[in-house]
Amino acid sequence: MENTNLKKLAQQLNLSISTVSKALRDSHEIGASTKIRVQALAKKLNYQPNPNASSLRRQKSKTIAVVIPEIANNFFSLAINGIESIAQENDYHVLIYLTHEDFKKEVNIVKHLQSGRVGGVLMSLSMETKDYAHLFELTQNNIPIVFFDRICHEIETAKVTTDDFTAGLLATEHLIINGSKQISFLSISDILSIDNKRMQGYLEALNKHNIQFNKSYSIKCTNNDSDNYLKIKKLLNSKNRPDAIFASVEKLAITVYEVCNDLKINIPKDLKIICFSNLATAHLMSPSLSAITQPAFEMGREAASILIKHLDKNRTFIPNEHIIIKSTLVARGSST
Amino acid sequence: MENTNLKKLAQQLNLSISTVSKALRDSHEIGASTKIRVQALAKKLNYQPNPNASSLRRQKSKTIAVVIPEIANNFFSLAINGIESIAQENDYHVLIYLTHEDFKKEVNIVKHLQSGRVGGVLMSLSMETKDYAHLFELTQNNIPIVFFDRICHEIETAKVTTDDFTAGLLATEHLIINGSKQISFLSISDILSIDNKRMQGYLEALNKHNIQFNKSYSIKCTNNDSDNYLKIKKLLNSKNRPDAIFASVEKLAITVYEVCNDLKINIPKDLKIICFSNLATAHLMSPSLSAITQPAFEMGREAASILIKHLDKNRTFIPNEHIIIKSTLVARGSST
Repeated sequence: MENTNLKKLAQQLNLSISTVSKALRDSHEIGASTKIRVQALAKKLNYQPNPNASSLRRQKSKTIAVVIPEIANNFFSLAINGIESIAQENDYHVLIYLTHEDFKKEVNIVKHLQSGRVGGVLMSLSMETKDYAHLFELTQNNIPIVFFDRICHEIETAKVTTDDFTAGLLATEHLIINGSKQISFLSISDILSIDNKRMQGYLEALNKHNIQFNKSYSIKCTNNDSDNYLKIKKLLNSKNRPDAIFASVEKLAITVYEVCNDLKINIPKDLKIICFSNLATAHLMSPSLSAITQPAFEMGREAASILIKHLDKNRTFIPNEHIIIKSTLVARGSST
Repeated sequence: MENTNLKKLAQQLNLSISTVSKALRDSHEIGASTKIRVQALAKKLNYQPNPNASSLRRQKSKTIAVVIPEIANNFFSLAINGIESIAQENDYHVLIYLTHEDFKKEVNIVKHLQSGRVGGVLMSLSMETKDYAHLFELTQNNIPIVFFDRICHEIETAKVTTDDFTAGLLATEHLIINGSKQISFLSISDILSIDNKRMQGYLEALNKHNIQFNKSYSIKCTNNDSDNYLKIKKLLNSKNRPDAIFASVEKLAITVYEVCNDLKINIPKDLKIICFSNLATAHLMSPSLSAITQPAFEMGREAASILIKHLDKNRTFIPNEHIIIKSTLVARGSST
């Protein structure tokens, strides 16, 4: 027999998973009549959060999982160092799981975590994730999640990010102040909250300086380096070549450097570049790379602190809270 | 009551842990009289491999652990990608544990793994590890280990490395052919097998080209970037400054670049540099960094393949085998 899960309940009731989840947890946000409908169907279909998980959970596992898209990325490497520093102070073990930006893998990992292997989860979403049923299931099974960087607004819990909007605005203004007028924005996803916030900052800066937004300058890249190379080459070969690029993530800036090398475009004379980056060798590049540097270590520490504080008190519900830690703009040779 | 473990048995018998371990597993390498002594004491002290672990083990956990020193390192990032590609094909989960080059942390993690959380372990040693009791315990509990990169020769199992000796020899010869005569070798540890092999390659190249080894050119660095900076600065400020540096690991080459920037030493005119590196931006550095590039992805794949092949057949003993996958020397601006 197929198990009843939140998704099934939501479909039969024609409600969102979020509403069903809250109704089962007796949230004040849900009306009494909805709660009665939800709870009645849950009883009828014998819905229960994974009982095995709950019983293991009571043993208060001193282990937390970190679920991230990739590690060949300086931001996540540093964030993990921050997480581990807090875990070590509190005698917790840390398990790292990689989704490789693959939604199915993320779902698979989260299901695996429901077996009660860990007390709680620190998570940064894959760039494909726009369905959150697997995450609702996890919290429903009393395994709390704290999000960092790539957060999920839908789920009530703590979230730690940098000030993506402000940093995006400042990065774009920096290019404008240094003489750029035709500024392209490279993003890696139109789903991720951080990418959208950074783009909004970019648009706000253009608006503030009376520069019209040129739609052809907004390039949506992917997780495929060769595709990105071709997209960026096309942009830089076009008649209306931009005079500056703001890349939402470091790997896109690296590809811009490669395209510029191949097309003999001089950075920063012909094209200025700035990007979000925690690259340890940014200052040794040719030319040195201007970057918005996120407080990756601190973001990891903060997310881990919140999770462990709740686990230590055996609290599985973490109140909604958005903690924002500021980034720093480091101007170097690529934009000045 | 304190549990009897391999270490205790070894101490009381005045034997090595390796010998005790083999005797208990009835290895043909151990003489009959020793076996009798070991097995008698084990019985007397009620020694038993963690029974909980064995029973869980029989459930054939489709999970493997990867224990590595750090992830802010392109070699390990790529190796993990290789490991995960094989794990995914075989429907295994991968847990990543970081030792941060700390021996105590490594011991702690390995003890944690003895609870039977995983079917097997892929491991690269911390730079401090010279006592292997925790690893013997793990194999004794029927959790097999496959080593990659930073291997442990003492333990009978499969090991995957690159050809560190040959690569060290070729890197040093490359510097000699390009005119260098006073070549310094920077290592990160005098315990790690890979570092010793690379140094032997360096010494062999000097010998082959009739260059006398200058002891003051062999610099042992640490895991502390500031200490390394000072050591390298002292070397490059000395009267007998070397005209080339061969760095055993990437992070030391990065520090050399920083010192050269600060001391206004021109690379490659005043100082040539080559190092082991999987840095994705090596070709974009100023100047571009010459590197011995290890087949990190392939090394991860190979190690994971061997482990999973044995786990799938419920074999906990993996025969001794040393698999060597060749590195590539990529000459760039820093050495030519």
